[in-house]
Amino acid sequence: MSNAPLVRLAREDDLLDAGALLHDFNTEFGEPTPSAAFLSRRLGELIAAGDTLVLLAYAEATPSGLAVLRLRGAIWSGTLEAYLAELYVVPSARGHGTGHALMLATMQTAKDRGATSMEIGVDEPDAAARALYEKLGFSNRAGTNNDLMFVYEREL
Amino acid sequence: MSNAPLVRLAREDDLLDAGALLHDFNTEFGEPTPSAAFLSRRLGELIAAGDTLVLLAYAEATPSGLAVLRLRGAIWSGTLEAYLAELYVVPSARGHGTGHALMLATMQTAKDRGATSMEIGVDEPDAAARALYEKLGFSNRAGTNNDLMFVYEREL
Repeated sequence: MSNAPLVRLAREDDLLDAGALLHDFNTEFGEPTPSAAFLSRRLGELIAAGDTLVLLAYAEATPSGLAVLRLRGAIWSGTLEAYLAELYVVPSARGHGTGHALMLATMQTAKDRGATSMEIGVDEPDAAARALYEKLGFSNRAGTNNDLMFVYEREL
Repeated sequence: MSNAPLVRLAREDDLLDAGALLHDFNTEFGEPTPSAAFLSRRLGELIAAGDTLVLLAYAEATPSGLAVLRLRGAIWSGTLEAYLAELYVVPSARGHGTGHALMLATMQTAKDRGATSMEIGVDEPDAAARALYEKLGFSNRAGTNNDLMFVYEREL
Protein backbone atom coordinates (compact mmCIF):
# COMPACT_ATOMS: atom_id res chain seq x y z
CA MET A 1 0.00 0.00 0.00
CA SER A 2 1.31 3.42 -0.92
CA ASN A 3 1.69 6.05 1.75
CA ALA A 4 1.87 8.91 -0.74
CA PRO A 5 -0.36 11.66 0.61
CA LEU A 6 -3.40 12.77 -1.35
CA VAL A 7 -3.45 16.51 -1.93
CA ARG A 8 -6.44 18.44 -3.23
CA LEU A 9 -7.93 21.91 -3.34
CA ALA A 10 -10.07 22.60 -0.28
CA ARG A 11 -13.79 22.81 -0.98
CA GLU A 12 -16.38 24.60 1.12
CA ASP A 13 -16.92 21.55 3.35
CA ASP A 14 -13.17 21.16 3.96
CA LEU A 15 -12.84 24.55 5.63
CA LEU A 16 -13.36 23.21 9.15
CA ASP A 17 -10.37 20.88 8.58
CA ALA A 18 -8.33 23.76 7.17
CA GLY A 19 -9.15 26.12 10.05
CA ALA A 20 -8.29 23.41 12.59
CA LEU A 21 -4.90 22.84 10.91
CA LEU A 22 -4.06 26.57 10.97
CA HIS A 23 -5.07 26.70 14.62
CA ASP A 24 -2.86 23.67 15.41
CA PHE A 25 0.01 25.30 13.47
CA ASN A 26 0.20 28.38 15.66
CA THR A 27 -0.57 26.43 18.82
CA GLU A 28 2.32 24.04 18.16
CA PHE A 29 4.75 26.93 17.72
CA GLY A 30 3.50 28.87 20.74
CA GLU A 31 2.05 31.71 18.68
CA PRO A 32 -1.25 33.40 19.54
CA THR A 33 -4.05 32.18 17.30
CA PRO A 34 -7.71 32.91 16.68
CA SER A 35 -10.09 29.97 17.08
CA ALA A 36 -10.33 27.20 14.49
CA ALA A 37 -13.87 28.42 13.77
CA PHE A 38 -12.66 31.97 13.04
CA LEU A 39 -9.90 30.66 10.78
CA SER A 40 -12.31 28.41 8.86
CA ARG A 41 -14.63 31.35 8.27
CA ARG A 42 -11.75 33.66 7.34
CA LEU A 43 -10.34 31.19 4.80
CA GLY A 44 -13.82 30.94 3.30
CA GLU A 45 -13.98 34.73 2.93
CA LEU A 46 -10.55 34.90 1.29
CA ILE A 47 -11.33 32.02 -1.08
CA ALA A 48 -14.61 33.73 -2.02
CA ALA A 49 -12.73 36.98 -2.68
CA GLY A 50 -10.79 35.09 -5.35
CA ASP A 51 -7.17 35.69 -4.36
CA THR A 52 -6.67 32.68 -2.08
CA LEU A 53 -6.50 28.91 -2.59
CA VAL A 54 -6.16 26.30 0.14
CA LEU A 55 -4.67 22.87 -0.50
CA LEU A 56 -5.15 20.00 1.92
CA ALA A 57 -3.16 16.80 2.31
CA TYR A 58 -4.89 13.68 3.58
CA ALA A 59 -3.35 10.50 4.96
CA GLU A 60 -5.87 7.67 5.32
CA ALA A 61 -8.76 10.19 5.17
CA THR A 62 -7.28 12.28 8.02
CA PRO A 63 -6.10 15.82 7.24
CA SER A 64 -2.31 15.79 7.49
CA GLY A 65 -1.30 19.21 6.22
CA LEU A 66 -2.25 22.36 4.37
CA ALA A 67 -0.86 25.07 2.14
CA VAL A 68 -2.37 28.54 1.72
CA LEU A 69 -1.63 30.14 -1.64
CA ARG A 70 -2.23 33.82 -2.46
CA LEU A 71 -2.33 35.20 -6.01
CA ARG A 72 -2.26 38.76 -7.29
CA GLY A 73 -1.65 40.61 -10.52
CA ALA A 74 2.03 41.17 -11.29
CA ILE A 75 3.19 44.73 -11.93
CA TRP A 76 5.88 44.15 -14.55
CA SER A 77 3.81 41.81 -16.74
CA GLY A 78 0.18 40.91 -17.32
CA THR A 79 0.52 37.62 -15.42
CA LEU A 80 -0.05 36.69 -11.79
CA GLU A 81 2.47 36.35 -8.96
CA ALA A 82 2.03 33.69 -6.28
CA TYR A 83 2.85 33.80 -2.57
CA LEU A 84 2.94 30.78 -0.28
CA ALA A 85 1.39 32.27 2.85
CA GLU A 86 1.29 29.14 5.04
CA LEU A 87 2.58 25.57 4.89
CA TYR A 88 1.91 23.12 7.72
CA VAL A 89 2.31 19.38 8.14
CA VAL A 90 0.98 17.71 11.30
CA PRO A 91 3.75 16.20 13.46
CA SER A 92 2.69 12.56 12.87
CA ALA A 93 2.93 12.98 9.09
CA ARG A 94 6.38 14.57 8.94
CA GLY A 95 9.19 12.85 7.11
CA HIS A 96 6.82 11.10 4.68
CA GLY A 97 6.79 13.57 1.79
CA THR A 98 3.66 15.47 2.79
CA GLY A 99 5.29 18.90 2.60
CA HIS A 100 6.85 17.99 -0.72
CA ALA A 101 3.52 16.76 -2.12
CA LEU A 102 1.75 19.91 -0.87
CA MET A 103 4.40 22.12 -2.45
CA LEU A 104 4.25 20.34 -5.83
CA ALA A 105 0.46 20.64 -5.88
CA THR A 106 0.63 24.29 -4.82
CA MET A 107 3.19 25.20 -7.47
CA GLN A 108 1.14 23.42 -10.14
CA THR A 109 -2.05 25.13 -8.99
CA ALA A 110 -0.37 28.54 -9.09
CA LYS A 111 0.96 27.83 -12.57
CA ASP A 112 -2.43 26.59 -13.80
CA ARG A 113 -4.02 29.84 -12.62
CA GLY A 114 -1.50 31.91 -14.56
CA ALA A 115 1.21 32.69 -12.02
CA THR A 116 4.75 32.91 -13.38
CA SER A 117 6.64 33.23 -10.08
CA MET A 118 6.22 32.26 -6.44
CA GLU A 119 7.60 33.85 -3.27
CA ILE A 120 7.86 32.52 0.28
CA GLY A 121 9.01 34.19 3.50
CA VAL A 122 11.12 31.92 5.72
CA ASP A 123 12.93 32.50 9.01
CA GLU A 124 16.63 31.62 8.98
CA PRO A 125 16.51 28.77 11.56
CA ASP A 126 13.64 26.97 9.84
CA ALA A 127 16.03 24.44 8.31
CA ALA A 128 13.48 21.81 7.28
CA ALA A 129 11.37 24.31 5.35
CA ARG A 130 14.41 25.92 3.75
CA ALA A 131 15.75 22.53 2.65
CA LEU A 132 12.37 21.63 1.16
CA TYR A 133 12.11 24.92 -0.75
CA GLU A 134 15.70 24.71 -1.98
CA LYS A 135 15.15 21.13 -3.18
CA LEU A 136 12.20 22.46 -5.18
CA GLY A 137 14.28 25.15 -6.87
CA PHE A 138 13.54 28.14 -4.66
CA SER A 139 16.43 30.43 -3.72
CA ASN A 140 16.90 33.27 -1.25
CA ARG A 141 19.56 34.81 -3.49
CA ALA A 142 19.01 36.98 -6.55
CA GLY A 143 20.83 38.80 -9.31
CA THR A 144 24.28 38.45 -10.78
CA ASN A 145 25.89 38.89 -7.35
CA ASN A 146 23.76 36.22 -5.68
CA ASP A 147 22.54 38.70 -3.08
CA LEU A 148 20.56 37.51 -0.08
CA MET A 149 16.94 38.70 -0.07
CA PHE A 150 15.44 39.84 3.23
CA VAL A 151 11.88 40.36 4.39
CA TYR A 152 11.44 43.61 6.34
CA GLU A 153 8.25 44.16 8.29
CA ARG A 154 6.55 46.26 10.93
CA GLU A 155 3.16 46.66 12.50
CA LEU A 156 1.24 49.76 11.44
CA MET B 1 11.34 78.08 0.20
CA SER B 2 10.77 74.56 1.44
CA ASN B 3 12.14 71.66 -0.53
CA ALA B 4 9.90 69.12 1.20
CA PRO B 5 8.48 66.89 -1.54
CA LEU B 6 4.74 66.75 -2.10
CA VAL B 7 3.38 63.22 -2.04
CA ARG B 8 -0.10 62.23 -3.16
CA LEU B 9 -2.11 59.27 -4.38
CA ALA B 10 -1.84 58.85 -8.14
CA ARG B 11 -5.03 59.65 -10.03
CA GLU B 12 -6.01 58.38 -13.46
CA ASP B 13 -4.18 61.23 -15.21
CA ASP B 14 -0.98 60.61 -13.21
CA LEU B 15 -0.52 57.10 -14.58
CA LEU B 16 1.71 58.19 -17.45
CA ASP B 17 4.09 59.74 -14.88
CA ALA B 18 3.93 56.59 -12.76
CA GLY B 19 4.60 54.26 -15.69
CA ALA B 20 7.55 56.40 -16.80
CA LEU B 21 9.05 56.28 -13.30
CA LEU B 22 8.76 52.46 -13.14
CA HIS B 23 10.36 52.25 -16.58
CA ASP B 24 13.22 54.54 -15.47
CA PHE B 25 13.63 52.44 -12.30
CA ASN B 26 14.42 49.22 -14.12
CA THR B 27 16.38 50.99 -16.83
CA GLU B 28 18.64 52.64 -14.24
CA PHE B 29 19.39 49.29 -12.61
CA GLY B 30 19.94 47.45 -15.89
CA GLU B 31 16.85 45.26 -15.53
CA PRO B 32 14.63 44.37 -18.47
CA THR B 33 11.44 46.46 -18.46
CA PRO B 34 8.23 46.73 -20.43
CA SER B 35 7.50 50.12 -21.99
CA ALA B 36 6.35 53.08 -19.91
CA ALA B 37 3.01 52.87 -21.77
CA PHE B 38 2.54 49.21 -20.78
CA LEU B 39 3.39 49.99 -17.15
CA SER B 40 0.98 52.95 -17.05
CA ARG B 41 -1.82 50.74 -18.37
CA ARG B 42 -0.92 47.89 -16.02
CA LEU B 43 -0.92 50.17 -12.96
CA GLY B 44 -4.35 51.41 -14.05
CA GLU B 45 -5.64 47.82 -14.22
CA LEU B 46 -4.26 46.97 -10.79
CA ILE B 47 -5.64 50.16 -9.22
CA ALA B 48 -9.03 49.42 -10.78
CA ALA B 49 -8.92 45.88 -9.38
CA GLY B 50 -8.78 47.47 -5.93
CA ASP B 51 -5.67 45.89 -4.38
CA THR B 52 -3.09 48.46 -5.50
CA LEU B 53 -2.35 52.10 -4.67
CA VAL B 54 0.32 54.26 -6.28
CA LEU B 55 1.84 57.26 -4.51
CA LEU B 56 3.78 59.92 -6.39
CA ALA B 57 6.26 62.47 -5.09
CA TYR B 58 6.61 65.80 -6.89
CA ALA B 59 9.42 68.35 -6.66
CA GLU B 60 8.54 71.67 -8.29
CA ALA B 61 5.73 69.98 -10.27
CA THR B 62 8.11 67.34 -11.67
CA PRO B 63 7.58 63.69 -10.66
CA SER B 64 10.48 62.73 -8.40
CA GLY B 65 9.52 59.30 -7.08
CA LEU B 66 6.85 56.69 -6.59
CA ALA B 67 5.74 53.93 -4.26
CA VAL B 68 3.50 51.01 -5.23
CA LEU B 69 1.47 49.60 -2.36
CA ARG B 70 -0.42 46.28 -2.47
CA LEU B 71 -3.11 45.32 0.02
CA ARG B 72 -4.79 41.98 0.72
CA GLY B 73 -6.91 40.36 3.38
CA ALA B 74 -4.88 38.97 6.28
CA ILE B 75 -5.36 35.30 7.19
CA TRP B 76 -4.96 35.44 10.98
CA SER B 77 -7.28 38.41 11.50
CA GLY B 78 -10.05 40.23 9.68
CA THR B 79 -7.75 43.15 8.77
CA LEU B 80 -5.59 43.84 5.73
CA GLU B 81 -1.87 43.28 5.26
CA ALA B 82 0.22 45.69 3.19
CA TYR B 83 3.19 45.04 0.90
CA LEU B 84 5.49 47.71 -0.49
CA ALA B 85 6.02 46.37 -4.01
CA GLU B 86 8.15 49.20 -5.45
CA LEU B 87 9.88 52.34 -4.17
CA TYR B 88 11.83 54.60 -6.51
CA VAL B 89 13.32 58.08 -6.24
CA VAL B 90 14.83 59.72 -9.33
CA PRO B 91 18.60 60.27 -9.05
CA SER B 92 18.38 64.09 -8.94
CA ALA B 93 15.99 63.98 -5.96
CA ARG B 94 18.00 61.61 -3.76
CA GLY B 95 19.26 62.74 -0.40
CA HIS B 96 16.42 65.24 0.07
CA GLY B 97 13.92 63.15 2.01
CA THR B 98 11.82 62.00 -0.93
CA GLY B 99 12.02 58.30 -0.05
CA HIS B 100 11.22 59.11 3.56
CA ALA B 101 8.22 61.26 2.57
CA LEU B 102 6.97 58.55 0.19
CA MET B 103 7.30 55.91 2.91
CA LEU B 104 5.46 57.98 5.53
CA ALA B 105 2.61 58.62 3.10
CA THR B 106 2.50 54.97 2.05
CA MET B 107 2.41 53.70 5.64
CA GLN B 108 -0.35 56.17 6.51
CA THR B 109 -2.33 55.22 3.41
CA ALA B 110 -2.05 51.53 4.25
CA LYS B 111 -3.15 52.20 7.82
CA ASP B 112 -6.07 54.36 6.68
CA ARG B 113 -7.26 51.52 4.45
CA GLY B 114 -7.23 49.08 7.35
CA ALA B 115 -3.83 47.40 7.10
CA THR B 116 -2.21 46.43 10.39
CA SER B 117 1.21 45.36 9.09
CA MET B 118 3.49 46.04 6.16
CA GLU B 119 6.15 43.88 4.49
CA ILE B 120 8.96 44.76 2.09
CA GLY B 121 11.45 42.56 0.23
CA VAL B 122 14.98 44.01 0.13
CA ASP B 123 18.26 42.69 -1.25
CA GLU B 124 21.14 42.61 1.25
CA PRO B 125 23.44 45.14 -0.53
CA ASP B 126 20.70 47.77 -0.91
CA ALA B 127 22.08 49.75 2.03
CA ALA B 128 20.22 53.02 1.41
CA ALA B 129 16.83 51.33 1.27
CA ARG B 130 17.58 49.15 4.31
CA ALA B 131 18.69 52.19 6.34
CA LEU B 132 15.50 54.05 5.35
CA TYR B 133 13.26 51.11 6.33
CA GLU B 134 15.10 50.54 9.60
CA LYS B 135 14.83 54.24 10.49
CA LEU B 136 11.08 53.88 9.96
CA GLY B 137 10.82 50.93 12.35
CA PHE B 138 10.96 48.01 9.91
CA SER B 139 13.07 45.01 10.85
CA ASN B 140 14.30 41.93 9.01
CA ARG B 141 14.39 39.99 12.29
CA ALA B 142 11.48 38.32 14.04
CA GLY B 143 10.54 36.38 17.14
CA THR B 144 12.16 35.97 20.51
CA ASN B 145 15.42 34.85 18.91
CA ASN B 146 15.65 37.79 16.52
CA ASP B 147 15.83 35.45 13.53
CA LEU B 148 16.64 36.82 10.08
CA MET B 149 13.74 36.57 7.64
CA PHE B 150 14.50 35.54 4.05
CA VAL B 151 12.54 35.82 0.83
CA TYR B 152 12.68 32.60 -1.23
CA GLU B 153 11.51 32.69 -4.82
CA ARG B 154 11.45 30.83 -8.10
CA GLU B 155 9.92 31.16 -11.52
CA LEU B 156 7.09 28.75 -12.24
